[in-house]
Amino acid sequence: MSNPKLAVNTIKGLAMDAVEAAGCGHPGMPMGMADAAYVLWSQHMKYNPKQPNWPDRDRFVLSNGHGSLLLYSMLYLTGYPDIGLDDIKNFRQWGARTAGHPEYGEAAGIETTTGPLGQGISNAVGMALAEQLLAGRYNSSDVTLVDHHTYVFAGDGCLMEGVSSEACSLAGHLKLGKLIMLWDDNSITIDGTTEIAFTENVASRFESYGWQTLRCDGHNHEQLNQAFEAAEAETERPTLICARTHIGHGSPNKQDTSAAHGAKLGADEVRITKEGMDWPTEQNFYVPEEAKSAFDSAVQAGQEAYHAWLRARETADADTIRAFDAQLSGRIPDGLWNKLPDFEIGGKVATRKASGAVLNAICADLPGLIGGSADLAGSNNTDLKGYDEVQAGQFSANNRNIRFGVREHGMAAICNGMALHGGMRPYAGTFLVFSDYMRPSIRLAALMKQPITYVFTHDSVFLGEDGPTHQPVEHAMALRLIPNSWVVRPADANETKFGWQIALERRDGPTSLLLSRQGLPTLAECDGDGVRRGGYVLRKEAGDTPELILIATGSEVHIALGAAKNLGPNVRVVSMPCFELFDGQSQVYKDEVLPPKATKRLAIEAGRTFGWEKYVGDGGIIHGIDRFGTSAPAERIAAEWGFTTEALTAKAQDYLNG
Amino acid sequence: MSNPKLAVNTIKGLAMDAVEAAGCGHPGMPMGMADAAYVLWSQHMKYNPKQPNWPDRDRFVLSNGHGSLLLYSMLYLTGYPDIGLDDIKNFRQWGARTAGHPEYGEAAGIETTTGPLGQGISNAVGMALAEQLLAGRYNSSDVTLVDHHTYVFAGDGCLMEGVSSEACSLAGHLKLGKLIMLWDDNSITIDGTTEIAFTENVASRFESYGWQTLRCDGHNHEQLNQAFEAAEAETERPTLICARTHIGHGSPNKQDTSAAHGAKLGADEVRITKEGMDWPTEQNFYVPEEAKSAFDSAVQAGQEAYHAWLRARETADADTIRAFDAQLSGRIPDGLWNKLPDFEIGGKVATRKASGAVLNAICADLPGLIGGSADLAGSNNTDLKGYDEVQAGQFSANNRNIRFGVREHGMAAICNGMALHGGMRPYAGTFLVFSDYMRPSIRLAALMKQPITYVFTHDSVFLGEDGPTHQPVEHAMALRLIPNSWVVRPADANETKFGWQIALERRDGPTSLLLSRQGLPTLAECDGDGVRRGGYVLRKEAGDTPELILIATGSEVHIALGAAKNLGPNVRVVSMPCFELFDGQSQVYKDEVLPPKATKRLAIEAGRTFGWEKYVGDGGIIHGIDRFGTSAPAERIAAEWGFTTEALTAKAQDYLNG
Repeated sequence: MSNPKLAVNTIKGLAMDAVEAAGCGHPGMPMGMADAAYVLWSQHMKYNPKQPNWPDRDRFVLSNGHGSLLLYSMLYLTGYPDIGLDDIKNFRQWGARTAGHPEYGEAAGIETTTGPLGQGISNAVGMALAEQLLAGRYNSSDVTLVDHHTYVFAGDGCLMEGVSSEACSLAGHLKLGKLIMLWDDNSITIDGTTEIAFTENVASRFESYGWQTLRCDGHNHEQLNQAFEAAEAETERPTLICARTHIGHGSPNKQDTSAAHGAKLGADEVRITKEGMDWPTEQNFYVPEEAKSAFDSAVQAGQEAYHAWLRARETADADTIRAFDAQLSGRIPDGLWNKLPDFEIGGKVATRKASGAVLNAICADLPGLIGGSADLAGSNNTDLKGYDEVQAGQFSANNRNIRFGVREHGMAAICNGMALHGGMRPYAGTFLVFSDYMRPSIRLAALMKQPITYVFTHDSVFLGEDGPTHQPVEHAMALRLIPNSWVVRPADANETKFGWQIALERRDGPTSLLLSRQGLPTLAECDGDGVRRGGYVLRKEAGDTPELILIATGSEVHIALGAAKNLGPNVRVVSMPCFELFDGQSQVYKDEVLPPKATKRLAIEAGRTFGWEKYVGDGGIIHGIDRFGTSAPAERIAAEWGFTTEALTAKAQDYLNG
Repeated sequence: MSNPKLAVNTIKGLAMDAVEAAGCGHPGMPMGMADAAYVLWSQHMKYNPKQPNWPDRDRFVLSNGHGSLLLYSMLYLTGYPDIGLDDIKNFRQWGARTAGHPEYGEAAGIETTTGPLGQGISNAVGMALAEQLLAGRYNSSDVTLVDHHTYVFAGDGCLMEGVSSEACSLAGHLKLGKLIMLWDDNSITIDGTTEIAFTENVASRFESYGWQTLRCDGHNHEQLNQAFEAAEAETERPTLICARTHIGHGSPNKQDTSAAHGAKLGADEVRITKEGMDWPTEQNFYVPEEAKSAFDSAVQAGQEAYHAWLRARETADADTIRAFDAQLSGRIPDGLWNKLPDFEIGGKVATRKASGAVLNAICADLPGLIGGSADLAGSNNTDLKGYDEVQAGQFSANNRNIRFGVREHGMAAICNGMALHGGMRPYAGTFLVFSDYMRPSIRLAALMKQPITYVFTHDSVFLGEDGPTHQPVEHAMALRLIPNSWVVRPADANETKFGWQIALERRDGPTSLLLSRQGLPTLAECDGDGVRRGGYVLRKEAGDTPELILIATGSEVHIALGAAKNLGPNVRVVSMPCFELFDGQSQVYKDEVLPPKATKRLAIEAGRTFGWEKYVGDGGIIHGIDRFGTSAPAERIAAEWGFTTEALTAKAQDYLNG
């Protein structure tokens, strides 16, 4: 028998008890959103706990991730395999799947990692976009393979963050009608009531983005039901349901206060709260059987939907299914790398242009490869030629160029959502300096092991006249610092080609390609295997031991090569496009490239020197840029700051003499 | 004689010619906004080119900074001292003040550095807030010392960026009625028309924030005039003027196209554009005398206003003027550092709490010290006790706690604006991990040499159960990479005190204080002079040369000290709270702290090891965290990952034995 009240109270009880047991956590949000979760998961959401990765499931994103217990409770009550009652009892403990905030990969049913506010909403926009793109490609008048909603729960904090403004504006623009967000409108933030900082008219803001907005009492099941129904009935506009809720709902002393947000209620308050809701006070983590059975019919409906989907697959034509499965698998088709363009040795190509050529050479064979730029498509060379834009209602196989607008952060978070949804290998382009705007989402891509490719062009002060605000200095090194994020700064067009191969072969994290604005000579010495090892000997010395090793990345490699030729036969040049890959090589290989005995080393990179110490060692020196850039033609900057073959030759000579 | 048309055409002509001469730049925006600039600077703005730093001047922010020539032209035509016609001819060249984007500090009248979109708007919110805060403190019924507007020109890109959403929502909340933004509504972005990505209803979005919105034809001077008048008449709400404009206005072939945005028009197009506006085509950089005299009456009015302001100062009481001048000077009062609290040796204090105690000990003497947190005031310990919140209409000397909401990026950009305005020494608090959200604005603070203090608490995985999304790993090192940004990670309460002293004595850039959530023992060995040198010997070895040097920062210093005691008398401990300060010391001092002969070195910091190589050298090792964190109690994480005295002792022992 379905018993809404028992289910809701169970969620509240688990939230209180788990936080109490951990000694910390956020009870208020799960208590305030238990009603909405119950209504959504019992009567609206399409899910099958036995097939948690079913591609056509509805997606559920808990953007206000501090309320993680709400999600864990739902996964437990509905029978997802990875979360048992013991996991909830073990909330926030070492090794537990039930982390303080939901961590993608810890348990089936956690669709994305949330906690940094605003990210979940923006991921959800990406998921809803991915759904439309797959539906547009694979559904036919006969067979529907893709037809699901993306539901988001979000709090005030999520809506205050700029990233959600960016993503939601784009969601409205793209008319992502199957995106449904429920706003936990509880008037409480950590520092007090929303009156102190957040008095905008949220509904009218979202209407200005082109969203449908609805209002309801977030504790009234009938109203919640009606709101979800109206949201699901709307296909042209995303929906915001403004659900008036009470944080810490049911707590006599802490409901509607900040005290319920981020700390345990305390044993006494838990007791009287439970008493007030007619709940056993002796037994913690109490779960009546009816609380689980309340979801039986939804689970059953989900299983039926799953089987109906399997049957539908059988009626689709074989080519469609093969293509659909291939796209969802993310596998690289055999022979793809043979299609990479060969760039003529001795030519001069900006690596951003080489990147565009690579993208265009392989995109037809990689239908999941999709992305765009934050309003710099021409400069980033991110457009897939011959393909149309992704626009509202235009989601066919031919619509592949996404116009993110000047919304770098939203772009990165949307790319995360598309990758998480499945079926998509997103890429995102902007100037390298603006990677700063995207950093919170890049970090989450790395944390969630999502294979996003960032196309960061204009990768040094040599972008020239736009000046210091547009000239990256610290960014290459700063991206290298993010765990599990790879950075590839190719020396020329051919290294760029292998950079893309590295990025696309990677399945467990993001890769940043750092690409030049300026033309760079295509070098005969470039070696694909070397690039894939992260660093390699581009020019070997004549003698047994190099007199000097020049180590360089990107646009500085050809300068180093030129200097080496000036300096004589015993100078080695190492190209080091990817620190992370090089660091992962065997010690033998690393010692081959940088022989320990060869202590005369000079690194050159048009960015911060800080961080290069690990390769040049105590005896080495580093030529870089430890100040902000300046507005001037690139050639002049190069001349003034010693980024020419002549200047490097002289510097190396001094170093060898000194 | 004022001649609007000549003035407007002069601006357009300069924009075309300067871009043509440079070979690159953005002619379209200055051509499209020349009319609005003319109307504003000739009839509305209060400015005195002879006193460009007059505190009560109106502020003008060109948020769409790529149109820098518009600003340079206005500064030149109105007689600002730093921009002559030669500077405009020298646009985007090495050493020129007329950089590709306006750079603060290059020329009087450039109120902020713009280019990274969205930042200028948000700086302007900070300026308007600073104006209100100074007006609330220093104006009386008799004397008005502070009464000026902040005008912003902004483009579509600025409005798409999330940071401007954050700042503008807060501006509406705070009812910053003297903030007036003119939106260059030209329907064009780099990638095409705004139809491709930006179809939200901007006016209704800003109304939802509580702004007044007005519409006008951005080329119709009468309508522009009326709009500015209506904006100035409104005192309760900020105003958005939606000015319909044509990018590249007057260019027969490029007006209303993306082609006018970021590239030169080309000689032929310049010629026919000039012909169409009846402008000499033979002479480049043509400036008729009437184009300058068009601003004579505005300049004269500004000078009169300036003198009226000087007279008003004379009528104010001496104490008020003294306090006003002192606050604007930013000087640290004599004896302030004597008021710093002394923390008892042997006690245990979280450095975030020590930071709060320091703030509260000195805030009464530093009226310009103002700030707050992005909804984590209690956790960041940023509240000034005994002071009220800054809220709409509440800007007295007693209103000092700003509630930024969950808007880290907006907070940082607003702090930049407050500092740029003058009179304010802003500080901004959040968890260290969320410094990522603020990074674009931190970079600009560093570039503009603004002395902002960032109160970054919860500075390591030892925040515990909130898990990897909240646990910084790479952030300390990533902040150290930003040129001219200082990072101080104090070992205990007393080092924290000196950290604040460093931050506040600094006048030429931002300082990040990295503070612990957890309690840390207050160490007898802490040395203020050492902290101010960035690194120092906290524990000296007994012998002549240390057998081992343990180098640590923040919460790892006491662990290193404990391990040193276990390891014996010949182990030195170096506390290294600030890399940047240490690197600036004499080589003699650096060699005293880290003697070159002492090559056995072990660095410990609860963050990325990458970057520490420069202090430990080839013979050293680094104990850090090169992965994401995990959700668990801090003690457990410390035990598992070797951040205990015992584990460090063992590691050091192995290292010495190995």
